[in-house]
Amino acid sequence: MPVSMLYLGDTTLQTAAAYLAGLVHRAGWALDYVPSHVPAAAELFGPPRSLVVLSDYSASRLAPSLQQRLVRLVESGAGLLMIGGWESYHGCGGDWDGTAVATALPVEISDTDDRVNCDQPTLVRRVDEHPVAAGLPWDGHPPCIGGFNRFRPKAEAQVVLETERFRAIREGENVRFELAGRDPLLVVGTWGEGRVASLATDIAPHWVGGMVDWGPGRVAAQAPGAEAVEVGDLYARFFLQLLAWTGRIDLESGIENLKSEIQDLKSEI
Amino acid sequence: MPVSMLYLGDTTLQTAAAYLAGLVHRAGWALDYVPSHVPAAAELFGPPRSLVVLSDYSASRLAPSLQQRLVRLVESGAGLLMIGGWESYHGCGGDWDGTAVATALPVEISDTDDRVNCDQPTLVRRVDEHPVAAGLPWDGHPPCIGGFNRFRPKAEAQVVLETERFRAIREGENVRFELAGRDPLLVVGTWGEGRVASLATDIAPHWVGGMVDWGPGRVAAQAPGAEAVEVGDLYARFFLQLLAWTGRIDLESGIENLKSEIQDLKSEI
Repeated sequence: MPVSMLYLGDTTLQTAAAYLAGLVHRAGWALDYVPSHVPAAAELFGPPRSLVVLSDYSASRLAPSLQQRLVRLVESGAGLLMIGGWESYHGCGGDWDGTAVATALPVEISDTDDRVNCDQPTLVRRVDEHPVAAGLPWDGHPPCIGGFNRFRPKAEAQVVLETERFRAIREGENVRFELAGRDPLLVVGTWGEGRVASLATDIAPHWVGGMVDWGPGRVAAQAPGAEAVEVGDLYARFFLQLLAWTGRIDLESGIENLKSEIQDLKSEI
Repeated sequence: MPVSMLYLGDTTLQTAAAYLAGLVHRAGWALDYVPSHVPAAAELFGPPRSLVVLSDYSASRLAPSLQQRLVRLVESGAGLLMIGGWESYHGCGGDWDGTAVATALPVEISDTDDRVNCDQPTLVRRVDEHPVAAGLPWDGHPPCIGGFNRFRPKAEAQVVLETERFRAIREGENVRFELAGRDPLLVVGTWGEGRVASLATDIAPHWVGGMVDWGPGRVAAQAPGAEAVEVGDLYARFFLQLLAWTGRIDLESGIENLKSEIQDLKSEI
């Protein structure tokens, strides 16, 4: 099946959605996009889909009948990925708890505000091996994030990444970093024939934090109709791996396109 | 003189400028605003000004003759604040080095790309006492940022804050934080009768980093025509102190307005 992604949310292509849309465009993968304020149309769920991404898209914009269709698409093999944000999971107006989509996701969604803003250093920690996390320097150069939705993994799901929140306390010329808590960051699983994944942080500022610049190289990207973005090469690789695994999309073709398209890429992706 | 601020840059009120405009509106201070893509008009520099803020506003949008007028306004008592960003200082298209405005600022601006993206924990450190930094928990609960422009203080200027970049290295269950470098973050001074200040980081995502959520309380703000924003109470206090000192604006009136306007403020500002 040719790549056929559907991406709903992250405000507009001129704002937060420019990040995911830019990466997907650079990878050469086909994408249909719906802004956060636009209710989803039934036609979007007609064709077979490699992957459906929900990110900062309120449950109220996806009618219950279309949520059922989406879940059936996943049962028959489509991937489903929810990315964190103020309108993801419960959030502040996301309200995905208790929905059909929530039954297919690999996490239990809170029924109250689940937003955690990190005003202190918060690192990502790999807790299990997984293709989504492969080949990245989680120990030698861990990324840091700025916020996330707090959820719990379902019993049969796999926790791949977690957040590690620190408290920084200045003591004279030195800083002491105290571990303040850990929460799941990336949980993966299956639903019927489909792969499902829940990322707790955002792909775009501000919750993505320093992770948007992760890596020594830079990737510039601009999808048609979208703002141009410039991100770190390890950030680009991580999100392509997440999309590719969840949607059973050929990763190498996407990475090859990123390498060849822009000449000023400072390090190999 | 009644408060009369002029704010140029940070894209639009519907995007990054919503942060500063929202805070200023909550404080009850008058503000004229010009988006980043709009060249400044001469009329803006006619009336006396308490404060002119340039943030992500390219030097090419402010004609040399108007830069001269701005500098004369500062000489006669107006405040001048530049806030960091990709189109501030040299940046990527800011190009303020070698301009009339640069002569009045308290820092030396690089003639090459001065952007530093922080993909590792970067804390703010107070290096000197100053009204802008008063009453905030720099040692007990230091804020962290996501990026900045690298500049050097001029000889007669005062460095109030600096960045402290760490490198996080995971060693088994523990993380070691190595100091990787320090750079000036807030430099203040005077130019004629006016106060001048250079902040290296942004007031808005993504460079503001976790500082946008600094503090235990939350402040919601929305200027007319702008997006609504929600920020940390210590972030709000810091930026109000920065604006008030630089523009010789009465700080207490602004803070009083923030306290009274929103009932769900969780902690005192």
